[in-house]
Amino acid sequence: MTTTIDGARIAREIRAGVAERVARLTPDGRVPGLATILVGDDAASAVYVAVKRRAVREAGMRDVHRHLPEEATHGTVAAAIDELAADPDVSGILLQLPLPAHLDAAPLIDRIPVAKDVDGLTTASAGRLARNERGLRPCTPSGVIELLDAEGIELKGACATVVGWGELVGRPLAQLLLRRGATVTVAHEFTADLAAVTRPADVVVAATGVRGLIGPEHIKPGATVVDVGIHRTPDGLTGDVRAAELDGIAGRITPVPGGVGPMTIAMLLVNTLRAAEWAAGREAVPA
Amino acid sequence: MTTTIDGARIAREIRAGVAERVARLTPDGRVPGLATILVGDDAASAVYVAVKRRAVREAGMRDVHRHLPEEATHGTVAAAIDELAADPDVSGILLQLPLPAHLDAAPLIDRIPVAKDVDGLTTASAGRLARNERGLRPCTPSGVIELLDAEGIELKGACATVVGWGELVGRPLAQLLLRRGATVTVAHEFTADLAAVTRPADVVVAATGVRGLIGPEHIKPGATVVDVGIHRTPDGLTGDVRAAELDGIAGRITPVPGGVGPMTIAMLLVNTLRAAEWAAGREAVPA
Ligand SMILES: NC(=O)c1ccc[n+]([C@@H]2O[C@H](COP(=O)([O-])OP(=O)(O)OC[C@H]3O[C@@H](n4cnc5c(N)ncnc54)[C@H](O)[C@@H]3O)[C@@H](O)[C@H]2O)c1
Ligand SMILES: NC(=O)c1ccc[n+]([C@@H]2O[C@H](COP(=O)([O-])OP(=O)(O)OC[C@H]3O[C@@H](n4cnc5c(N)ncnc54)[C@H](O)[C@@H]3O)[C@@H](O)[C@H]2O)c1
Repeated sequence: MTTTIDGARIAREIRAGVAERVARLTPDGRVPGLATILVGDDAASAVYVAVKRRAVREAGMRDVHRHLPEEATHGTVAAAIDELAADPDVSGILLQLPLPAHLDAAPLIDRIPVAKDVDGLTTASAGRLARNERGLRPCTPSGVIELLDAEGIELKGACATVVGWGELVGRPLAQLLLRRGATVTVAHEFTADLAAVTRPADVVVAATGVRGLIGPEHIKPGATVVDVGIHRTPDGLTGDVRAAELDGIAGRITPVPGGVGPMTIAMLLVNTLRAAEWAAGREAVPA
Repeated sequence: MTTTIDGARIAREIRAGVAERVARLTPDGRVPGLATILVGDDAASAVYVAVKRRAVREAGMRDVHRHLPEEATHGTVAAAIDELAADPDVSGILLQLPLPAHLDAAPLIDRIPVAKDVDGLTTASAGRLARNERGLRPCTPSGVIELLDAEGIELKGACATVVGWGELVGRPLAQLLLRRGATVTVAHEFTADLAAVTRPADVVVAATGVRGLIGPEHIKPGATVVDVGIHRTPDGLTGDVRAAELDGIAGRITPVPGGVGPMTIAMLLVNTLRAAEWAAGREAVPA
């Protein structure tokens, strides 16, 4: 009765679509390129960057990479960003987070030109989203919207509750849902009665980093539940939702793993393509 | 039983407080200055600007004004902004809207440096608000927060519903309420069942431009109702709320006129003072 949303399949289809559009670019069209910057030797970050670089190459795009030492100064990282910002072969720039503790991330992120901000995390991109202007949107929340679209879920007029108001997910996602015409409630750690604001919702998105926060007491029968949380446990990955307990209650649910996770990389490729088209003066970036 | 929130009095107190702080600035402190730019001869805009300029002078601040002709080009307006941006005697710049139809407002607004953006309407200021960074916030939504604070209404953990997702009011106000720890719902013209999302709320703000939209069917007994709407009628000003019908139901309500309206100018003065303090390196701008 509860449908599991196959994020892995939807992400594969989006990536295949990107690869096709890249392959169709006219011979004089520039191949889109993604530049990844990794500072230091954090093992998890190295894995994330490797996965992104592989996805870029598989999509037929140019893989540009800068690996800076752990002790890189603000000036060194800034210079790398500036060089990539000026490089016409680089469509998008991704600064892998977190940075080593001695570096202040915000001013470095804000150095990425808005037209190459494929992570959508600069202040300029956030402002463009808030003011409904053309720009690149953060990957994970865009991926959530794509999942809902792929499942044919009508957002206009629907009630959506976003649990979590984080910078990476909840905050931009609330804006994206509002742009699509949903009535949106944002809940967070100070919400007094969480079930009271999730139970009426047609769509509930959990993006809190609190393992197993959302259960049957929070969900209206038939509602769509999107689980953005990722928790590594001895038994494998789990999310912010007690998915097993929602079987037969939720209408649709995204699993962890295989739900939102794969969409983030798919949307990074989409954003790189959009950035390349934006640079070429074509209107592929969502207004 | 229903308390009318006296926005006129609260605004007067805030303005007196600003005047006091201006008067106390050390002799070597620069007097804060607000520059207003009026383009063309729209009668209503001329009145608004005159009211703002008078308030600036009454607060003991420097009143700088540029009146450009109706047929001013983009370049002329841009040059005026640039000149004021470079002027150390000008703490804040306000470009009165609407502009004549031949001018594109967005790029002109975005020309105002973020540290002088006392209207808080630039993309950069919107981004800073969205990312929880230091910056000047739009006057009307800040005024709503000040009213609620002056009345001692606890926002942390409260449920607030903002009706209207406009750029001037609804959108920034939702962010400000979330920053204060409220659980926030945003409703708008596509909301299917408005009463369903306003009735549970402890605070309801109406900012839609739809006269008399909100009535007793929308309000929980004891809730606080803030009416941002302004409609000129033969019988005087009215708002988005049918205030008379809420008597005995709402716990507190802002009247029109005399509620939110006077707060907008008070907050413009507060923002000008904050901009001056920001320019002087003091940390008066809300993080
Ligand atoms: N699937 C992906 O690709 C992907 C990408 C990014 C983030 N994530 C995951 O999404 C989650 C959120 O990420 P973020 O960066 O936005 O997080 P964040 O830490 O910035 O924000 C967490 C939010 O959750 C809220 N919260 C905390 N406890 C709560 C509670 N008990 N009830 C209700 N709300 C509560 C907080 O108030 C805050 O607004 C994390 O688990 C992260 O691992 C997944
Ligand atoms: N008091 C003041 O100082 C002050 C300052 C600025 C604006 N205002 C007033 O505030 C109001 C809003 O201003 P704005 O610039 O944000 O408006 P806007 O036109 O940009 O936005 C209006 C919003 O209301 C929503 N809306 C329209 N019809 C609706 C309906 N039937 N039900 C629910 N929502 C509906 C729209 O979807 C939109 O999100 C206006 O009336 C304006 O005059 C007052």
